[in-house]
Amino acid sequence: MKSLFGFLILACGLSMAQDGAKPAATNVPGAQYPLVYPDRRVTFQLKAPDANKVQVHLGQTFDMTKAEDGTWSVTTSPLVVGFHYYSLVIDGVEVNDPASQTFFGSDHQSSGIEIPEPGVDYYDVKDVPHGQVRQQRYFSTVTNAWRRCFIYTPPDYDSNPTKKYPVLYAQHGWGEDEYSWVVQGHVDQIMDNLIAAKKAKPMIVVMENHLTALKPGEPRLQLGGGRGRGGTRPDFTNYGATYTEMMLKDLIPMVEKNYRALTGRENRAMAGLSMGGLQTFQTTLQHLDQFAYIGGFSPGLPAQAAFDKIYTDAAGFNKQMKLLWIGTGTVERDSNPNILRLHEDLDKHGIKHVYFESPGTAHEWLTWRRDMADFAPRLFQ
Amino acid sequence: MKSLFGFLILACGLSMAQDGAKPAATNVPGAQYPLVYPDRRVTFQLKAPDANKVQVHLGQTFDMTKAEDGTWSVTTSPLVVGFHYYSLVIDGVEVNDPASQTFFGSDHQSSGIEIPEPGVDYYDVKDVPHGQVRQQRYFSTVTNAWRRCFIYTPPDYDSNPTKKYPVLYAQHGWGEDEYSWVVQGHVDQIMDNLIAAKKAKPMIVVMENHLTALKPGEPRLQLGGGRGRGGTRPDFTNYGATYTEMMLKDLIPMVEKNYRALTGRENRAMAGLSMGGLQTFQTTLQHLDQFAYIGGFSPGLPAQAAFDKIYTDAAGFNKQMKLLWIGTGTVERDSNPNILRLHEDLDKHGIKHVYFESPGTAHEWLTWRRDMADFAPRLFQ
Repeated sequence: MKSLFGFLILACGLSMAQDGAKPAATNVPGAQYPLVYPDRRVTFQLKAPDANKVQVHLGQTFDMTKAEDGTWSVTTSPLVVGFHYYSLVIDGVEVNDPASQTFFGSDHQSSGIEIPEPGVDYYDVKDVPHGQVRQQRYFSTVTNAWRRCFIYTPPDYDSNPTKKYPVLYAQHGWGEDEYSWVVQGHVDQIMDNLIAAKKAKPMIVVMENHLTALKPGEPRLQLGGGRGRGGTRPDFTNYGATYTEMMLKDLIPMVEKNYRALTGRENRAMAGLSMGGLQTFQTTLQHLDQFAYIGGFSPGLPAQAAFDKIYTDAAGFNKQMKLLWIGTGTVERDSNPNILRLHEDLDKHGIKHVYFESPGTAHEWLTWRRDMADFAPRLFQ
Repeated sequence: MKSLFGFLILACGLSMAQDGAKPAATNVPGAQYPLVYPDRRVTFQLKAPDANKVQVHLGQTFDMTKAEDGTWSVTTSPLVVGFHYYSLVIDGVEVNDPASQTFFGSDHQSSGIEIPEPGVDYYDVKDVPHGQVRQQRYFSTVTNAWRRCFIYTPPDYDSNPTKKYPVLYAQHGWGEDEYSWVVQGHVDQIMDNLIAAKKAKPMIVVMENHLTALKPGEPRLQLGGGRGRGGTRPDFTNYGATYTEMMLKDLIPMVEKNYRALTGRENRAMAGLSMGGLQTFQTTLQHLDQFAYIGGFSPGLPAQAAFDKIYTDAAGFNKQMKLLWIGTGTVERDSNPNILRLHEDLDKHGIKHVYFESPGTAHEWLTWRRDMADFAPRLFQ
């Protein structure tokens, strides 16, 4: 009897879960799959009668099973909440799921899936006043090229034509671009919601691409290991020098000329995720006179000398800086505790800072959305 | 001797062509393939050691050939200039080329390739003043939802804070979205360049999504035939009614409240490509009091009654309308002469209009870029 009873409960549980299943918000219009269950399991499906092997790569690998009609499918174990890049592997070739929207990461267009967090809506489009995100072109004298950035202006920007705003410069991660903080990060929605709740000051957010900021003939720095996954780590002593130079000579002056931006270091913050966190440290720690707020979201770390320099005068650094903020997901921390170590080091040297952990998340966008939601309210107060 | 001489010329020609070959502008960073030759042939390449058959779908189908190292490749015949959607077919499954950026069309993210036109730069980023493209959210009472549109503001918009501008509403095609006129169409670059050359008046361009404008519970109209390719044609008598209602009640009032827009029909144009051209006719021909400029770029055609109505009073229509503009590519015209027929019908009934043909192009974005470059200078003069 026990085994039959167990079977009935299992069947009932599956049926209930399927009742509340919904196509992922990241699907293209009309695509039923990927289908997300309330318990965060996901069914992926692909029609591929002539394929010999189809898998889903999503942090881990799931083998799909072929039905008689040539449809492959798999239902995963419950996934972590938030946004995940993923791909299909069809007969050994890693490609996008035709049913998914695409998201630029690791230097290519990738499928992505959003697993909803019940009761959490700070990064959704809500019934609040909305700012704009503007595609802004400008000429960079340092790279000798026209470039594009995206600029978030807060909801009251156009209706308050004399008001000036402080500015956050927000950097994406490895192989992403100047639009990633909007598409994957929902930064406009996070800011709209924080501002509406009076949790953050209205501010301008500038998003540029530190990976393409190269002087004529300057090679793009590779992280090593093909598409930047693993491999050798380059010398970071001078990493991002061109971007730093371009920010100071071209980007910041353009923003402060064309937007109603408050000027000076106390009205300027810089934050970045992963490689963008490395860029942030490289730029800000060498130019403390330009930035009073620094955010490292699961940051790559610069050469130790960058920190040794501030350790020599902790009191001076603490007096000068309004905020040094670092964060990591607990899942990524468990495999790579470098941010936790930095936190301990900063403590040991008496450097004031905020250390934030995102529970249960890895080196992924939900960690960085949570980071932004904690970081932005601390700015310009 | 003749055959040897011929061989030498061929080899020499290939060698010269390869010298000037460049990765397509639509590739992801670092991707060498697709590689475009000066004679517009393209080499596609994919590493797929375990695949049995790989093809490129690009209007026509090209079989790829497998080398010993598992790399598949093919060099096409010379392609038509402009932007083409394409896909790879790996063991029968149609997927994106991992080396290509993605472009939203036919309701999915597709690979795309830009074949340059020598000496043509009106849709490139040039050294001219640039406008902005703004992501604008607004609440639609008709669809009872927050929606997103993109709004081009001309270069002098922010520096001329009292100046008002006329507005063009520009619609995308089947399965595309409110960002397509920017990404595939380069409309911001076309407008920047026309305005800099003083060929077009500075104007605001509003881009919304007519395919997602649905009341709660209203089904999305399918063109038939799966992803909208072929199949039965629905009754177009009332097609796009919700979008028209939403434009008049929500979108136009929002634009005229939040932007420095000139109001009234003589400051309002609407144009669209393909299904967006159908939407344009459906909206404008029923609301001649709201629009003085109409553009159909390879448009889908509404039910005949829509035209019969204006044929009953050609003189009145001619007096009221500032511009009725229709265009088609000569290649699409040869297989489907419906726009040419409409032109002849309009002539027969004495309706003043402009008829434009794009030489050598099909139902594709280069036709519509050329359309915009001819249409926009005729507006608001």
